[in-house]
Amino acid sequence: MPARNHNKISNSTHHQQPLADFKVGVDNVIFSVDTAQNRLLVLLVMRQQEPFSNSWSLPGTLVRQGESLENAAYRIMAEKIKVNNLYLEQLYTFGGPHRDPREQTNSYGVRYLSVSYFALVRFEEAELIADKVAGIAWYPVKQIPQLAFDHHEIITYGHRRLKNKLEYSPVAFDVLPETFTLNDLYQLYTTVLGENFSDYSNFRARLLKLGFLSDTGIKVSRGAGRPASLYKFDEKAFAPFKDKPLVFI
Amino acid sequence: MPARNHNKISNSTHHQQPLADFKVGVDNVIFSVDTAQNRLLVLLVMRQQEPFSNSWSLPGTLVRQGESLENAAYRIMAEKIKVNNLYLEQLYTFGGPHRDPREQTNSYGVRYLSVSYFALVRFEEAELIADKVAGIAWYPVKQIPQLAFDHHEIITYGHRRLKNKLEYSPVAFDVLPETFTLNDLYQLYTTVLGENFSDYSNFRARLLKLGFLSDTGIKVSRGAGRPASLYKFDEKAFAPFKDKPLVFI
Repeated sequence: MPARNHNKISNSTHHQQPLADFKVGVDNVIFSVDTAQNRLLVLLVMRQQEPFSNSWSLPGTLVRQGESLENAAYRIMAEKIKVNNLYLEQLYTFGGPHRDPREQTNSYGVRYLSVSYFALVRFEEAELIADKVAGIAWYPVKQIPQLAFDHHEIITYGHRRLKNKLEYSPVAFDVLPETFTLNDLYQLYTTVLGENFSDYSNFRARLLKLGFLSDTGIKVSRGAGRPASLYKFDEKAFAPFKDKPLVFI
Repeated sequence: MPARNHNKISNSTHHQQPLADFKVGVDNVIFSVDTAQNRLLVLLVMRQQEPFSNSWSLPGTLVRQGESLENAAYRIMAEKIKVNNLYLEQLYTFGGPHRDPREQTNSYGVRYLSVSYFALVRFEEAELIADKVAGIAWYPVKQIPQLAFDHHEIITYGHRRLKNKLEYSPVAFDVLPETFTLNDLYQLYTTVLGENFSDYSNFRARLLKLGFLSDTGIKVSRGAGRPASLYKFDEKAFAPFKDKPLVFI
């Protein structure tokens, strides 16, 4: 039984509340990693309508008649970003009462539920589409401004999912350039998981032992250190691991 | 842009569909393992109202005014099952058009979205509440009858999540009795993951090496084999692994 009655409408059965009416939105948490600056970024857009007009928010939209949740999520992304092979994964559904001011009986009086979707895109490839929107930007996850609704909470949830994916799947190789040094890979993990997630030499030893990083034979010099080998992710060598549980760090 | 127009109402902007109206349901995928018979079970209830009256379905309900999604999920479970420390985890949201016949314009004309929740409960502890319902039963996942709505799909999704949890978390020890043989543990994994998920001796060696199974010193004889040692899950020895990515098989 709900704890409080937020609505004056009474129900024929009296001992239960009437059903809630909903509009359903989709909100997308799009992460990227700026590998040059070792920053984890999230895509934000400036809202142009009430509520929270002129606040930053996740790119989202309300689901239309005849439209699936996924289609709504892809529709709004097609208006915001150009990127190869965008793959949105469902993240979590936020649907508690009071998450949207439009729920008020003196506003529209219906609840707004948000189904969030998640993607990690390659920073260099992604092209933001700024036409006709008040603002669109990659924000460092560490410097997110005040956001509309509960979008902060959605980003926190998305960040947790991203960490998980990095730990358990080869998603890192989707965002690194085709060839990379082991230090580039370590930096990417550090950027997403935080400092001290693992010792560099353990990380290096573990990844090399797994056997799906192949040395290209090419070395690069960066800064003062010794030249470092460039590696490639070897899809073929990874195939036997594909459907097995595996930890990357 | 949605592919088809399912509704005759036109919109002031013309090139876009009006927003869809939703009721929101919660559906719970409650798994249990009958360790005596090595069967993975899922909880089903017989629907008592249209649509799909007299069909088996997942225990679910529609969200009421002022009620959170979680509260709705716990409310319906409290009417169906008694179990210690039920912990429902959000699984996935199914919200495409045409998933509920009540969506038809000649019925209620609103979409029905389902937020599914998931739990694994200990079979011996769970007590089904049959009062006032036409039917409630544990069904073996391998022998599920025809179900209402897209509940088959929801169970398939839940089963995948359960496999994942068994691979990456110590959830098995929540459903095994307090003391168990390594063979009991292996049987549980086999019941959920399917035959041949791992060789018994590798599984045994891996689990013992991780160091959080403690030998109670007690042995049991079952059938013709040698007496087998009874083990306990050692929470304290597991603590250092708790926030680290880990594979159990």
